[in-house]
Formats: sequence, C-alpha cells, structure tokens
Amino acid sequence: MWRYLKRVLIGKPLKTLDEGKTHLSKFKALAMLSSDAISSVAYGPEQIVTVLVTLSAMAMWYSIPIAAIVLVLLLAITLSYQQIIHAYPSGGGAYIVATKNWGKNGGLIAGGSLLVDYMLTVAVSTTSGTEAITSAIPALYKYSVPISVIIVLLIMFMNLRGMSESANFLTVPVYFFVIMIFIMVIVGAVNIATGHITYHAPADYGTPVVGMSFVLFVRAFSAGSSSLTGVEAVSNAVPNFNEPKEKNASTTLAIMSAILAFFFIAIIFFGFYLGIVPNAKVTVLSQIGTRIFGGHGLGFYLLQLSTAMILAVAANTGFSAFPILAYNMAKDKFLPHAFMDRGDRLGYSNGIISLAVGAIVLILIFHGQTSMLIPLYAVGVFVPFTLSQSAMIIHWFREREGWWIGKSCINFVGALISLSLVAALFWQHFENVWPYLIIMPCLLWMFHKIHSHYIKVGKQLRVAEKTAVQLHDYDGSTVIVLVGNVTRVTRGAINYARSIGDYVIAMHVSFDENPGKEHKTANEFKAEYPDVRFVDIHSSYRSIATPTLRFVDVIAKRAEARNYSTTVLVPQFIPKHPWQLILHNQTSLRLRTVLNSRQNIVVATYSYHLHE
Amino acid sequence: MWRYLKRVLIGKPLKTLDEGKTHLSKFKALAMLSSDAISSVAYGPEQIVTVLVTLSAMAMWYSIPIAAIVLVLLLAITLSYQQIIHAYPSGGGAYIVATKNWGKNGGLIAGGSLLVDYMLTVAVSTTSGTEAITSAIPALYKYSVPISVIIVLLIMFMNLRGMSESANFLTVPVYFFVIMIFIMVIVGAVNIATGHITYHAPADYGTPVVGMSFVLFVRAFSAGSSSLTGVEAVSNAVPNFNEPKEKNASTTLAIMSAILAFFFIAIIFFGFYLGIVPNAKVTVLSQIGTRIFGGHGLGFYLLQLSTAMILAVAANTGFSAFPILAYNMAKDKFLPHAFMDRGDRLGYSNGIISLAVGAIVLILIFHGQTSMLIPLYAVGVFVPFTLSQSAMIIHWFREREGWWIGKSCINFVGALISLSLVAALFWQHFENVWPYLIIMPCLLWMFHKIHSHYIKVGKQLRVAEKTAVQLHDYDGSTVIVLVGNVTRVTRGAINYARSIGDYVIAMHVSFDENPGKEHKTANEFKAEYPDVRFVDIHSSYRSIATPTLRFVDVIAKRAEARNYSTTVLVPQFIPKHPWQLILHNQTSLRLRTVLNSRQNIVVATYSYHLHE
Repeated sequence: MWRYLKRVLIGKPLKTLDEGKTHLSKFKALAMLSSDAISSVAYGPEQIVTVLVTLSAMAMWYSIPIAAIVLVLLLAITLSYQQIIHAYPSGGGAYIVATKNWGKNGGLIAGGSLLVDYMLTVAVSTTSGTEAITSAIPALYKYSVPISVIIVLLIMFMNLRGMSESANFLTVPVYFFVIMIFIMVIVGAVNIATGHITYHAPADYGTPVVGMSFVLFVRAFSAGSSSLTGVEAVSNAVPNFNEPKEKNASTTLAIMSAILAFFFIAIIFFGFYLGIVPNAKVTVLSQIGTRIFGGHGLGFYLLQLSTAMILAVAANTGFSAFPILAYNMAKDKFLPHAFMDRGDRLGYSNGIISLAVGAIVLILIFHGQTSMLIPLYAVGVFVPFTLSQSAMIIHWFREREGWWIGKSCINFVGALISLSLVAALFWQHFENVWPYLIIMPCLLWMFHKIHSHYIKVGKQLRVAEKTAVQLHDYDGSTVIVLVGNVTRVTRGAINYARSIGDYVIAMHVSFDENPGKEHKTANEFKAEYPDVRFVDIHSSYRSIATPTLRFVDVIAKRAEARNYSTTVLVPQFIPKHPWQLILHNQTSLRLRTVLNSRQNIVVATYSYHLHE
Repeated sequence: MWRYLKRVLIGKPLKTLDEGKTHLSKFKALAMLSSDAISSVAYGPEQIVTVLVTLSAMAMWYSIPIAAIVLVLLLAITLSYQQIIHAYPSGGGAYIVATKNWGKNGGLIAGGSLLVDYMLTVAVSTTSGTEAITSAIPALYKYSVPISVIIVLLIMFMNLRGMSESANFLTVPVYFFVIMIFIMVIVGAVNIATGHITYHAPADYGTPVVGMSFVLFVRAFSAGSSSLTGVEAVSNAVPNFNEPKEKNASTTLAIMSAILAFFFIAIIFFGFYLGIVPNAKVTVLSQIGTRIFGGHGLGFYLLQLSTAMILAVAANTGFSAFPILAYNMAKDKFLPHAFMDRGDRLGYSNGIISLAVGAIVLILIFHGQTSMLIPLYAVGVFVPFTLSQSAMIIHWFREREGWWIGKSCINFVGALISLSLVAALFWQHFENVWPYLIIMPCLLWMFHKIHSHYIKVGKQLRVAEKTAVQLHDYDGSTVIVLVGNVTRVTRGAINYARSIGDYVIAMHVSFDENPGKEHKTANEFKAEYPDVRFVDIHSSYRSIATPTLRFVDVIAKRAEARNYSTTVLVPQFIPKHPWQLILHNQTSLRLRTVLNSRQNIVVATYSYHLHE
C-alpha cells in the first residue's frame, strides 16, 4: 500500500549508474539558476518602499537613489562572483570556498547560515508566490497558509522524483516572468509617452522631506538588499555548464545580473511615478500591474501568474542547493550521515524532506506573513557572501599569480559591501535579525558535537594494528531459549537452538496471578522435551524483562568462564497481517531491546509465521 | 528520565500478591458507587427544561409530570437491579448477564454499548463539571476545553496510581455534594416559607400551552432519562461489599435511588417555582443556587465547587468500570490481550489510558459542548439495561424456583421501560443518536474479527497430538555474517559466528558509487580473515535489503538441503547515548525487519557497545 503510493508519487527506482551528468546550455542555465535572483524583484523593491512610507508618502522618491546604490552593489557582487567562477570551476559554494581559505569554523558559519537560509528562501518565495495569487484572487486570501504549504509539498515531490525530469519544465516560468515584466515595462513606457498614465508621485524627486534621516535611509536600503539574494547560484553550478564551462557560467551570471538590474530599477521607477503605496493585501508589483495594464484584465492576470510561478521555481532553487550542501557537510562529518543517502531517484531524499519540513514550519509559525523574515534571510545570505568574498582575497594572496592584486581588490569591494550590509541589517533591523545570534552558535555547537561523535566512533571501531591474535576461538556456545508457553513456536526454537548450541537452556518467567497454573508451563515443557534443561523464574512484579536479564547475566558469566559464547533465542510468531500485531503482546520486542544492552550476549529471533 | 517521571506520577511498582480485596462499608460504597447516578441531577433536569423551552417558557410546568414519570422508572429500575444483585452476587455487569442468558451476541452488544458509554460518561461528566466551574467563574469560560482535558488527565493518573490510594479521598466530594444540595433545599424551603423567594413560574401548573404535543412530551421525557444513568454501578460491585454482601449492596442501591429521586424532584421543583430558563453559559443548577443563596456568596460557590467535584468523581466511575469490562472482553478474546496487562500499580493500564484518550477526543471534537452527546449516552445506557433486564427474565425462567414469576415480572417492567426509552430516544433524538447505528455494527464486526483471529492463532500454535518425532535434529548450522565494513564489530561478530556455526559466510553489499573503492572492503576482509568465505554482492539500486534477502534465500535453501539450520548475524554498534542513534544509518534495523519475513531463517544481532 505504502510502497504503491510511494511508487506513484516518486517514480520507479533508478540505478546508481543511471546518473548522467546534466549539461546546461546558457539558455537553460539562465532559467534554472536565475529564478531565485530575478524573482526577488517581486518582494525586494516593496521592502524599500515599505520602510520609506513609515515616515511619509512624500519620502518615497528616496527609493530611486537607494535603487541606484543597490545596483552598484549588484555590479560589485557580480564581478566578485565571476572571479569565484574562474577560481573554483568545480563549484564554489560558500561552504567550500570558506572552508578552504578560512578554515573549518569559517566554513561552518557559512554552511550553517546557508542551511537556515535555504529554508528561509523556500518559505519566503512560496509565501510571496502565494501573495501574487491572493493579490489577483482576493477570495483566496484566507487560504494563504494552506496554499503555501501545498506549493512546498508539490516542489518537494518534484524533487524526490529527481530534477532531470523537471528541469526542462522549469525554464517556462522563468522566461514567462521575464517576458511579462518586459511587456509591462514597454506597455508602461508607451502609456506614459501617450499620456494614458499620468504622473502620480506624492512628491517630486528631490523634494525635501521633514524627518528624513541617514538612519532611515540605511534602514530602507538594507531592507532592499534582499533583492541581491540568489546571485551566488551560478557560481555553485559551474560543473553543470557546457564547455567552456567557466566562460559560459560567467556570461550567464552577467546576463542574469543585467536582467535583475533592469527589472529592479523599472519596478522602483514605476512605483514612484505611479505613486504606489504598499498595502498588506495587494503587492506593489501587483498594484503596478493593475495600473499599467488598466485594471484586472488578461495582462494583469498573466503577470500575477508568472510571478507566482517564478517564485515557486525560486523555492525550487533551495531544493537544489540544500541537499547538496547537507551532503557536503555530512561527508565532512558535520551533519548526520543520513544526508548522504540517496533515494530511489538518486536525489538526497533526507535533505529534500528536511528542507520542506523546515520551510513548512516557518510558514506555519509566521502564518504565511513572512515579510518579517526577509531581514533575517538577507543576513543569512550576506554572511556567507562576506565569508566567501574575503576567502577569495586569501585565495589570491596565496596564489599570487598574474593580476592577483586587481582580483583581490574586486573581491575586497565585494566583501566590504556584504559586510556593511550585514552591519546595516544588524543595526537597523535588529528586531528581526536577533535570532541569527542564537541560531548560529547552536548550529556551530551541533556541528562540532556531531563531528566529535563520528571521530570517536571511528576510532573505537577501527581494527587495531595487526596483532598476533586476530580471532578468538570459543570452546562452545550456550543458548538460552525464552519460553512463554509450549507451542509449535517453542518446538521450532528448541530445534534450532540445538543446532547451534552445545548447551541449551529453556527459561520461563511465571507470575503469581494464577496460583493453580503455576507449574503448568513447566510440566508441559518437561513432558515434551525431557532432555532440555528448563528453568522457571518467578516474578512478583509482572515484569518479564528484569528477571530475564538477571538470569541471562548469570548464565553469560558462567559461559564466559567456560569460554562459551552466549545466545538468547527469542521465539515469536508473525501474524499473517501486520495489523494483527496490535492483538499480541510485544514482549519479544521489549525483550530484544533490553537484551541488546548487553555486550557479551547475542540476541537471536526465531520467527514462526502464521498462515491464517 | 522517562522512568523517573513515571515513578513520580504513577508510584513504585506493586507486587501481584500485594493486591488486597477492597471491602466496602455501606457508607463508603455509597460514596464510591453513587457519584455517577447522583451527579446526573446536575445535567438531567436541565435536559428536560431545555426541550420544553423550545416551545415556550409557558410549557415549563410540564417538567413536573415528566419528573414524576422519571421517578416511577427509577423505582422500577432499582427493583430490577436489586434482583440482579441477588442473582449474580459475583458481579452482574450487563456484559456478563447478557452473555450468560442471551448468548455471545447479546453480550457483545451490551459490552460494546458500555465501552462507548464509559467514554461518554467521562466526557459528559467532565464537561458538566467544567460548566459548574465556568458558571461560577465566567472568566474561565473560554478555557473550558483545556480545563476538561486536564481533569480527565488528572483522573487518569489517579487511576494509574491505583484506586486503593484514592478511594477514601473519593468519599469527600460525594458527601459534600449531598450535603450542599440538602442545605440548598432547606434554605430554599425556608426562603419560600418566609417569603424571601417569591413565585416566578412563567405559567401555573396546568395552564394549557398552545402547541404542546405528546411528541414534545416524549422528547423532553427521554432527554431527562439521562438522570437514570449510573444506577447499575452498585450491581457490578457486589463482591467488594462487606458481608452480608448482597444485603448490603441491595440496601446501598435503595439509599442511592432515594437520594437521587429526592434531588431530582427538588431541582425540578425549584426550577419551576423560580422560573429558571436554561442558558448556554450558566447551568440551571447554578441559577437555582444563585437565587436561593441570594447572589454569588459563599453558599453559591460551595455549591458550584461540590458540583464540579462530584462530576469529576462520576467521571472516575468510568475509569473503574471500563478497564474491568475491557479485561473481561479481552479474556473472552473479543478485545486485544493488551487490556489484560496489569500496570506497575496493578491497574489495567491500557484500559485506563484508552478510556482517557477516547474521552479527550470526544471533548475536543465537541469543543466541550457535549450536551448533544447526552441522548447518545442515554441510548448507550438503556440498551445494556434492556439486555440485562430481559436476560434476567430468561435467568428466572431457567431456574424456575420460588417467586420466579414475580421476579420475572419486575425485570419485565424494567426491560420494558428501558426498551421504550431506547425507542423514544431513537424516535425523538435521532439527530443525535444515529451514530449508535454505525458504531455498534463496526464494534461487533471488530469483536468477531479479533475473536476469530485469536482462535485461529491458538489453533496454529497448538502442539499437535503427541507424535513420534517431536524434535528435529539438524546436522549443523550455517551462519551468514553481514559485513558493512571491516571494524572491531566485524571481528566480534565473526568470532561469535564461528562459535555457533559449522559453516560461516561473510556477505557484503557494494554499490557503484565509489568505483575506486569497489573491492576495498573485500580486500580488507580477506587480509584480516583469510579463512572465512567472503561474498561480495553488487547492488545497482543502492538497496541493501533486497540483494541480501536474495542471497540469504539461496544459502538457506542449500543449508536446508544439507539439513543445516540458517542464521543471519547482523552486527551493529550501540552508541553511548541513545540520541546518537540518529547519526547512524539504521541499516541493521531495516535488515532485521526484512529478514524476519523468512520462516526458515533465524536473525541474530551482535551488539558492540561504544564507551565514548
């Protein structure tokens, strides 16, 4: 039943060798890797305006200089990442770059930030996608949370099925969104030129605004920096590009940044020109769409649909990146090995499922109102940015070849910008960013704890240097058969015990409850198997485990003295249907658990299968 | 940790022989057995008035003739049950009486009804108790559901600790309530006599009411019959009385019915005289208390407290009766044997916990507004009443001694009344009673299913008639050791395997993943244990279980041909702390589960314990 369901949802298992290398053309790569970055224009500009409007609608013209600075940052970060592409063509995730150059702890901070960040990516993108849907169809507003959760689950199943199947499909939403925004910009420009759309800004560019301060400027600017998230995606995926990999990746990154820059400035401009005021229920992008396409027509609905779709694909980026990062960290023994297991379809299922669970928990906690998560999300992005950019400076300095000083400078600018963004976020958005200061130390502690555990285990399990006596020869084996009552199960167990044991003892635990039947089992047993030793243990507390353990310990000690091994044989019967298990006492399970606590005892299970 | 918590909540385990027989004096028995019946005056009268007021407040005088009829019923049922006490002095629960006289299915219908009913008892009593609290302290109204759930959990823990400890304590609330109602009646009577309380009935007794019909009368009357629930409790507990058991039990039942009758009519009378109109937030009893004690003074709060307390004790009645009924039905193989297990404190823990879970689910589903459950509850009571009373007629007819005809007549009246109440409830309260028609067939089907399973299992396990060959002699044993990698665990496992096996094979499953390391394990193993046969199985699907099973099946077949037994030894290491288990793949667990599906294979576990 469960297997069948799994087969339908996940698909049939793939062989390990079936894994082909995915090779991406620039066109496809742009679609697959840029969704996270480009889709952030759906919420980034809104963050800027939302901060400014807390002062007054008059202050909204400041969004234009802020946008200009964001674009400068984008340029710097793009250049820095192009350098990473060339330096780490085998994929330069922040975790790897930081580990290689900053050492273990630098890598762990970057890795930990990103793990949390991918959960935030999924949560923020899905809820923003849901907002695009509910802005178009307000009746769905009250179902925001279930819609977001369903989207996450759908993406999770797609990923459990394996990406190769879904990759082609993913290019559609990205290009759809790009085209829709282009159309919107053109229609908007034409409408402005023809006078169909009139200037509505609450205050002209440059109007002095009472109360405007540098602090507020930084606050708005750092909030808007969330638009820069996702730029790193290309640098992680260099190995997947067509040859020449580095050049193609670098070009793709440039194209992506250009598109992002254009969209960002366009949305900021229209927002200002049309005098759009942020609103909890209708997104800024959706308001711009309404005005440009003239009400709720086809253009508007297509825009909303494309926004929702690209945001869903952006959430998918998290699903590509998280399991690989978790795999790398598990390989370095900082996360449970379970993250290295491959599922039926070759995906790292545990990573995929953990990510989905984390994102759903975030959505449920914040009731789908994740905008307060955006500053935290930005910190989680810019900390690894800072670490990997600064790591590159170390990298260049170590190599000291060619243009290393120039390259270092570019990375230095990138690192500096990222660092100042982190500082700005901590300064101006501390109320949303503080959890980072708690989560990070906990994660680091956990990574180290896990690591030291694996190291210890490895040391204890390692076979010592070739010593003289490799194997120990026992002189024989003692087998204790636990007998509940005398049935066919008992007979099979005794037969088997005699085949492996040199000395077989049957043991039974009796209770006070039925005084008449006290020796019933003993008598039955002795009648059936007169030549097997039978020990009847009396329990006053209706516990089977404790007296069994006590008896077994005594026998094991004696066996050891005689150089015998000790086996405890637990007979059980398996009913025909699994549900019938609840009708039977799970004594054998409990006994096995308890007996496994003994080092010198092997626990064996004899299963008798019922056929009716 | 868990053990410590359990010890604190439940207490230290008791020996089976520690169980003393509880012997109840009449005074104590009245307290322990009557809480369910007497406490039903807290909601029974209210049900009558609630139905009448749907027509008009004028109709409320009809509550007096209805109450008179209810009292006649009470008399008849009391007489019938006194006969059951004498006929089944060893405890005449409806399940036993109906099974003995009506046969298996009659007993099962009675038993099934009661199982559900005890859950309803607990749910209805607890929520009514909570209503008494929230009527006194309206600020708590919004916390009704959590309060009810906490009360159920408290009673559950009390019962898991064992009743002997709590029995004395239970007499207090019952006598407290009895005294408070007596005081209320006396104060009320004095106030009426002195003219402090004036006549407020919306219409005099006998005023013709437009629209009053026989149907409505039956509806109100059948709703009020819920006050008769709980009368059977004494007849179930005869063995617990002091000698002469039957006489004492019979007297206790008479006293209980007298108190119930007096309280019932008193509350109906005051309700009518004071013109109390039912209200969702304040119970009728609480309104009467307010009027008689003159507002929210000490008297009023004591009344509410005593009501809440007796209702909690009434819920406890369910906890005494359900586990014993479940035990009896499990002994007859109609319920899982788990209901026969005794906990640390000699209570039937599984029954106690199941009841609490069932009641809590009901409370949560109905959001603590369980008044709609009362008709269902009444059906669940009167069906077993009918069955046990009619069973008594069969009983007398079989015995045909002494006054058997007279006795039959009394039980006949009892049966007839109960049956007509069932009919009335189905006729007038079908909207609340229909689930009975679904639940009952399902329960009966389940009982039969469980029964036939146990019978089949018993047949399959029974050792056949003494046959010639009791034991089978194997010529030797094959042991397959599953090897993941070559560690100390492997060495211990191989040592052990050689002590029990005549032929030892090591088996390893290798994947494609690391082409370089393909033969790593094989080479390491052969270097360490050159004289043990090593088989390397290749898996393309990253599954260990399937290829292992396939290989083991082949070996088992060969072993069988040679008359060898087959053991699969699964080595595992046990980390020092249980939480560390999540850091390791649970392959051994999965393998054992899969291998247990084979009849002819014994699965043994070698545990290597880590100490760091």
